[in-house]
Formats: sequence, structure tokens, C-alpha cells
Amino acid sequence: MDVVILAGGAAPPDLQTLHALLASQPDALLIGVDRGALYLIEAGLELDHAVGDFDSVSQEEFALIQAKSRSIHRSPAEKDDTDMELALVMAMEQTDPANTNYYLFGAITSKEGRLDHLIANLWLVYQPRFKAIQGQLHFMDEARQIDFLTPGCQVIHNRNQARYLSIISLTPVEDLVINQAKYTLAQTSYTYPRALISNEFMGQDPVEVSFKTGLVMVILEKKT
Amino acid sequence: MDVVILAGGAAPPDLQTLHALLASQPDALLIGVDRGALYLIEAGLELDHAVGDFDSVSQEEFALIQAKSRSIHRSPAEKDDTDMELALVMAMEQTDPANTNYYLFGAITSKEGRLDHLIANLWLVYQPRFKAIQGQLHFMDEARQIDFLTPGCQVIHNRNQARYLSIISLTPVEDLVINQAKYTLAQTSYTYPRALISNEFMGQDPVEVSFKTGLVMVILEKKT
Repeated sequence: MDVVILAGGAAPPDLQTLHALLASQPDALLIGVDRGALYLIEAGLELDHAVGDFDSVSQEEFALIQAKSRSIHRSPAEKDDTDMELALVMAMEQTDPANTNYYLFGAITSKEGRLDHLIANLWLVYQPRFKAIQGQLHFMDEARQIDFLTPGCQVIHNRNQARYLSIISLTPVEDLVINQAKYTLAQTSYTYPRALISNEFMGQDPVEVSFKTGLVMVILEKKT
Repeated sequence: MDVVILAGGAAPPDLQTLHALLASQPDALLIGVDRGALYLIEAGLELDHAVGDFDSVSQEEFALIQAKSRSIHRSPAEKDDTDMELALVMAMEQTDPANTNYYLFGAITSKEGRLDHLIANLWLVYQPRFKAIQGQLHFMDEARQIDFLTPGCQVIHNRNQARYLSIISLTPVEDLVINQAKYTLAQTSYTYPRALISNEFMGQDPVEVSFKTGLVMVILEKKT
């Protein structure tokens, strides 16, 4: 069973992408974070869980969230964890982390335009408590998907008709190789995080990425 | 002499912020990157340098850039360095890196919405060739300013009337302390990059940040 989490930063086109994902994963655990819970309900969906301090919704909206959610997890407004972190911890407790994909919507686009929120969401992947799911964590929005690669040989399929493929290391990385992309990379080690951006898929071939140590982020970005 | 670089991702409100900066630094070295060169000219400015492959401008626009720039540095369209990197290398060659602030506009907002470009620009700060200017590198746009702190005791002033102050480490960090902010932090070491976001300035007091080893990014973000 996969997990789909929608946070309050989601834009309306993200919901179309979410509907397409749910069509292939109808029994996914569905979690709304803060105002994201309301967006899911407005889109005609019923939630398994709603998580957040709900400062951004009115009393009437909160009553609606209560009516349409199997459970409510209300957090204090001032806390050390973000509501997205709390939602992800809960999602891990209710699933088998080794065999679950976690799709996070509304975390990399923000209608409010808060860049610090976007970065804080990406920085989740560095946290030791989420290490077990690094490779199964997927940030989604209408225009892009962000995945994370752990050491080994990995194949990247062009699932979202992306034009650009960016391979961005988040740590030093040893023996990075990129094959079957427009710009290949012969075995190279970097002692610092490095952004290799605007690569392209070559037709139907998946791109192959391998490395020995480190953590790598992959951004699949559509032409805009 | 400070340096102001404007890249093609700049939005019109960024130019107002740039004009305000130039009012206090009238002799700053002014560099336009790609379409950014055109934006500067359209804003009535004359450039010291224009850098880029200029794929995003027409022949007529390129002729205008040539007429209004003291020098043109045309790069090949397919290259290992980004045009922003090339502009920054040139800026360092023409200044005294120890005594220069480098203000980069159009690097953290993108009208095209390319998240990989935004991240590649931030990742500049990890590159060994820019290590000497980490503390003097400032990403600017209308809504926010991003600075970088190197080890020691540092004072953060609220120059852009920011509401939110986010202190985000880019590496492991030793003995991080935050004082005089809404949420203070007693001496804490992190073995992984950590995002401490949505802090707030307390009145007129500057926030004090200190740490022993590591690299820290500071985002000053206005209320939107």
C-alpha cells in the first residue's frame, strides 16, 4: 500500500497529477496536511488522516475536515517538527517502510512562495529518521517529480514525460556514472554536492546512474 | 567595488530591488547574464559585461546588448559551466574577492519555474572555486535575500524588512548557537544538514549565530 500526502502548498494542477496517481493506486493511504486536507475534500476525496495545526483554515473548514477524515491529528502551532514531518512519521508507522512509496504533493511548490518551506521539505531526506525511506520518497507537483537515489546501480524511467533530467548530489559522492542520457558522465568522484542539470532523456531508453557512496537527488522536469 | 549580476530568471519586481541597491552602490560592476542583460538595458542601465550563450534573445536583441555593454563574453550553448558560473568567475577576476560583495539577481526566482536552475544556483556555494567568497555571496529577489555564513560568530541584520528568518545548514555543523531570535538554539551539533525555518526577528535586535565548523545558509523572507 502506497502513501499519498498533500500539503497546503499544493496548487490546483497538482490535484490532477494526484488524481492520476490515485487512479493506479486506489487503496493508497491518503493524508492531508493542514489546508491540504481541505483541498483533498474539495476534490471529492475522503481522507484516512488529517494532520496539522490547522491555523490556516476557518472553524467551519475544520469541521468539514473532521467530518471527512477517518482520523484527525492536531499539532500545536509552535513545535519543533513541521506538519509535513509529523505526517510522514505517522505514514511510516502505519505502513511497511521497506515496501512503500511515499508521494508528497504540495511540498515543492508553494502558492505562498515560501522558499524556506520548499528547502525544509527537501531537507527531510537528510534526516536520520527518514533514512530508511530515502529511495521511496517522491516529491510531486504538476511540472516535476523529485526522487532520491542511494548507492548502487539505478535506472531512471521518464514516467512524467519530462524534458529535463537533473542529477544533483546532496553529499560528496564516489564513482558517479551517468549512462544513456544526452550527456553521459564517466566515473567521477565529487568531494562536495554537485548539480548536474538540464540533461535529457534519449528516446525510450532509461537513464542509468550508479555510484558507490553518497546521496543523489533526481529532478524530472517537464518543459514549461 | 561591489558586483551586481542579473540573470535571465529575474522577474520585473526584482529590478526595483536592484535599483535600490544600485542607488547605494552607484559604481558597482554591473553584469547581465543572457536575457538578464536585456532586462538591465530595458531598465535604462548600461552594462559593464554581458555573459551568456544568448540563445534566449533574438538577433536584434543581441545587437542591442552589444551596443549597450562595455564587453560581451559569448559562451557556447553546450558547456560544463552555467552562464551564471561563468559570470561569477569573471566577476572574481575583476575584483578583490576578499573585499567585494557579489549580489546575484534572477538566480532564485525563475519566471520559467525551473527548480533545477534554482538549486544549481544555490549549489554554487559548495564549489571549491567560490569558497573564498562564500560569505560575500548574496542571492537577491523581491521577496527574499539568501546569505551564507562561515564558522565564527555572525550577526544578521534585518536589512530587507524580512518577517521570517531561516537558518539552514548545508553541511554537518558543530556547536550551532542562535541568539536574540524568537526561537533561540542552545549549542547543538548536527551530523547532517538541518533546516531551522520560520524563525523571526525580535524588534530591532540583530540575530546572532555562531558555529565552529560547517556552512550555513540564511534566508531572509518577507511576508507574502
